Amino acid sequence: MSYFDAASSAPLHPVARQALLASLDDGWADPARLYREGRKARMLLDAAREAVAEAVGCRADEVAFTSSGTRAVHTGIAGALAGRRRVGRHLIVSAVEHSSVLHSAEAFEAGGGTVSTVAVDRAGAVDPSACAAALRQDTALVCLQSANHEVGTVQPVAEVGEVCRAAGVPLFVDAAQSLGWGPVEGDWSLLAASAHKWGGPSGVGLLVVRKGVRFVAQGPVDERESGRAPGFENLPAIVAAVASLRAVRAEAAQEAVRLRELTERIRARVPEVVPDVEVVGAPERRLPGIVTFSCLYVDGEALLHELDREGFSVSSGSSCTSSTLTPSHVLKAMGVLSEGNVRVSLPPGTAEEDVERFLGVLPGVVAGVREKLGAPAPETAVRAEELVVDSLGKRCPIPVIELAKVIGDVPVGGTVRVLSDDEAARLDIPAWCEMRGQEYVGEEPAERGTAYLVRRLS
Amino acid sequence: MSYFDAASSAPLHPVARQALLASLDDGWADPARLYREGRKARMLLDAAREAVAEAVGCRADEVAFTSSGTRAVHTGIAGALAGRRRVGRHLIVSAVEHSSVLHSAEAFEAGGGTVSTVAVDRAGAVDPSACAAALRQDTALVCLQSANHEVGTVQPVAEVGEVCRAAGVPLFVDAAQSLGWGPVEGDWSLLAASAHKWGGPSGVGLLVVRKGVRFVAQGPVDERESGRAPGFENLPAIVAAVASLRAVRAEAAQEAVRLRELTERIRARVPEVVPDVEVVGAPERRLPGIVTFSCLYVDGEALLHELDREGFSVSSGSSCTSSTLTPSHVLKAMGVLSEGNVRVSLPPGTAEEDVERFLGVLPGVVAGVREKLGAPAPETAVRAEELVVDSLGKRCPIPVIELAKVIGDVPVGGTVRVLSDDEAARLDIPAWCEMRGQEYVGEEPAERGTAYLVRRLS
Repeated sequence: MSYFDAASSAPLHPVARQALLASLDDGWADPARLYREGRKARMLLDAAREAVAEAVGCRADEVAFTSSGTRAVHTGIAGALAGRRRVGRHLIVSAVEHSSVLHSAEAFEAGGGTVSTVAVDRAGAVDPSACAAALRQDTALVCLQSANHEVGTVQPVAEVGEVCRAAGVPLFVDAAQSLGWGPVEGDWSLLAASAHKWGGPSGVGLLVVRKGVRFVAQGPVDERESGRAPGFENLPAIVAAVASLRAVRAEAAQEAVRLRELTERIRARVPEVVPDVEVVGAPERRLPGIVTFSCLYVDGEALLHELDREGFSVSSGSSCTSSTLTPSHVLKAMGVLSEGNVRVSLPPGTAEEDVERFLGVLPGVVAGVREKLGAPAPETAVRAEELVVDSLGKRCPIPVIELAKVIGDVPVGGTVRVLSDDEAARLDIPAWCEMRGQEYVGEEPAERGTAYLVRRLS
Repeated sequence: MSYFDAASSAPLHPVARQALLASLDDGWADPARLYREGRKARMLLDAAREAVAEAVGCRADEVAFTSSGTRAVHTGIAGALAGRRRVGRHLIVSAVEHSSVLHSAEAFEAGGGTVSTVAVDRAGAVDPSACAAALRQDTALVCLQSANHEVGTVQPVAEVGEVCRAAGVPLFVDAAQSLGWGPVEGDWSLLAASAHKWGGPSGVGLLVVRKGVRFVAQGPVDERESGRAPGFENLPAIVAAVASLRAVRAEAAQEAVRLRELTERIRARVPEVVPDVEVVGAPERRLPGIVTFSCLYVDGEALLHELDREGFSVSSGSSCTSSTLTPSHVLKAMGVLSEGNVRVSLPPGTAEEDVERFLGVLPGVVAGVREKLGAPAPETAVRAEELVVDSLGKRCPIPVIELAKVIGDVPVGGTVRVLSDDEAARLDIPAWCEMRGQEYVGEEPAERGTAYLVRRLS
């Protein structure tokens, strides 16, 4: 098996495993207790906090260990918003944040707050001037990920940090995907991360709140972790998390070069070996290990199953059952094709042969799925004026497949009207037009569902 | 070292360690993913849920795994209160609940709710009729622990469950201290527990919400754990927690008899070998492994340090730095002496010799601490009318020590007026009177601090 889904969860690093085993013996007691076992646990906890602070580039007393990255995000955003309540109740998030950030924003909105979403470009990157334009007198917080989890695009955190600093608004950075590769540069105020993304065990998140940032923890708290993470500290896992962070950091520079070369190979070769594919995400400013592409006329979930049979574990932003938001809000915000989406995220240590084997297997797998769905062959023929395709009751990618089958049957300048009641069509028909150089005219309400109008240009 | 603080955290059970190691290999992937590693993780998670449901006596789909017992309590209480918001905003808790329950109650009060606290008797037990009397039309929830964490007293959960059922009010049970010994009997609605109390790893709590109980999770959630515990599941720890629960349950009946005999020995022998000691907590309806006593004229923290030097790790309800609430709200609610408090909580497997060594060492340790503090010798002499003891600026146990030194200097019927500005005196002077058969007359405001009046009766 080749596990290519490190962006979901990385396998436990051998150093983490060792550290976990060692601290199971020394770190099970309550670090708040005064007796020997408690003091030993306290020492381990203090040392872990110092080591994390060094890796993050902050003070030890700014670090709280939480029970997950999600918890760090929820706690951090809620606490920062509450701390700035007098300033106002306006929150800015990018359109491509992780679901934990978006869920926090929804909860804030449900409680009476206002949320502005900053759009991204076709590569998935935020424009710092768009952030600046979204700022208001009553803006309490800005949230921006360090790098995107679905497409690997690195965000301009330092630039947005400057914008925020100039406005006196704190910046919350979800660093879950990048912290294993290096510290987050720039002037951020709060940071969250998740240990199992860098090869640490699950059950450990980080919440960093810079000194001077107003923060009021929400909900019941206790005396642990500066009142920011109630409940007994998960010390063996914390020790293991920190040990693996140090270990991956020591290997990061070298491994980044190697993985970047492998993902570059996938970026370049996939469009050569698979027809009708769009590679998405920034080509340069991106994480080393993530590459994402979408295949026309393919159902993401079917593709994922076939790749799994071939021994490859990948993720899909268009898979209905493996993700919270369907179709991927990230691909939607980027305006790229979401159907037949595959995210390959290589864990450190991925062998070159495995990537080659993947590239060897992929064309046959995609062709197989397309054949089952009756997708059009790369050739087409010509005829009529305006054609209507009735795809009512059919789920994505069928409407696009049917559109592609008939587009050649109208003359250049003629139109195809696709009737569909599947929400994904609203994204995928315009995306298909952009990819194939056809004109997307727009949508109209139909007797049932929606009519999507496409004009043939070539 | 003899670790006698299992009620804080039990050492990892060997079975938990084994299960943790095994599932580090198989259980690190995201159970929500569709590929092989994800399916394996999902199977482990499903099996763990089934096993826990069996041990708790509930349905698998009623169980959510949380990141700690504290988190289970916070989430459970907040969700149950929100689910019953239309009924009213009145919460009932016992006076001796764990701090996580009391913190939840405080947060509820801060948000506009009303909290009633049900008193306990001198043994620490709740009276079901007192619970019934506290119920109101607008009562949303009743919280009662299955057994007390500081003194081991078992609460009448089944009886209170009947009271609640009759009133149509859900009952939340904090089962942290008892779940390793057996399921909670009776008709409860929600239950919380913590794996590291039964020899599981830290980082795992249980929240059980019975079908039909109205529950609205608060704060941002995601699709994991029925929307009750957001964030990546800590699967290796969950598997280990469940394995150790099964293991301790298999040994529970036999080990309960053995530990009960050992704690019974401590209950009986401590008052024989240490003068001026009060053993607190219910003598019969109690957990097998916990015994708590308070020593007059002793500072709990000093005692704890001396016992640690002798190789015993115990906890103290009167230690300022090892606990959230000082002095112990449990001992206060029971009306028993809080000074010089020691909680011995034996982990399963505790050797008889270690308990004997503890009983051998304790008298000398207590005597040594008393000598340093200048406590009175067990003899006394006689004289005057009313004496004033100025203990202003002196911390507990000094005011009680000074009271004890002079009580013999007034004739029977005479009074001692103790001036003190230490809050603990308000608890400990009446408790001393009860223990020594003297009359506590009451308190009066003084120019500085408070005057506590004691009449000599014998």
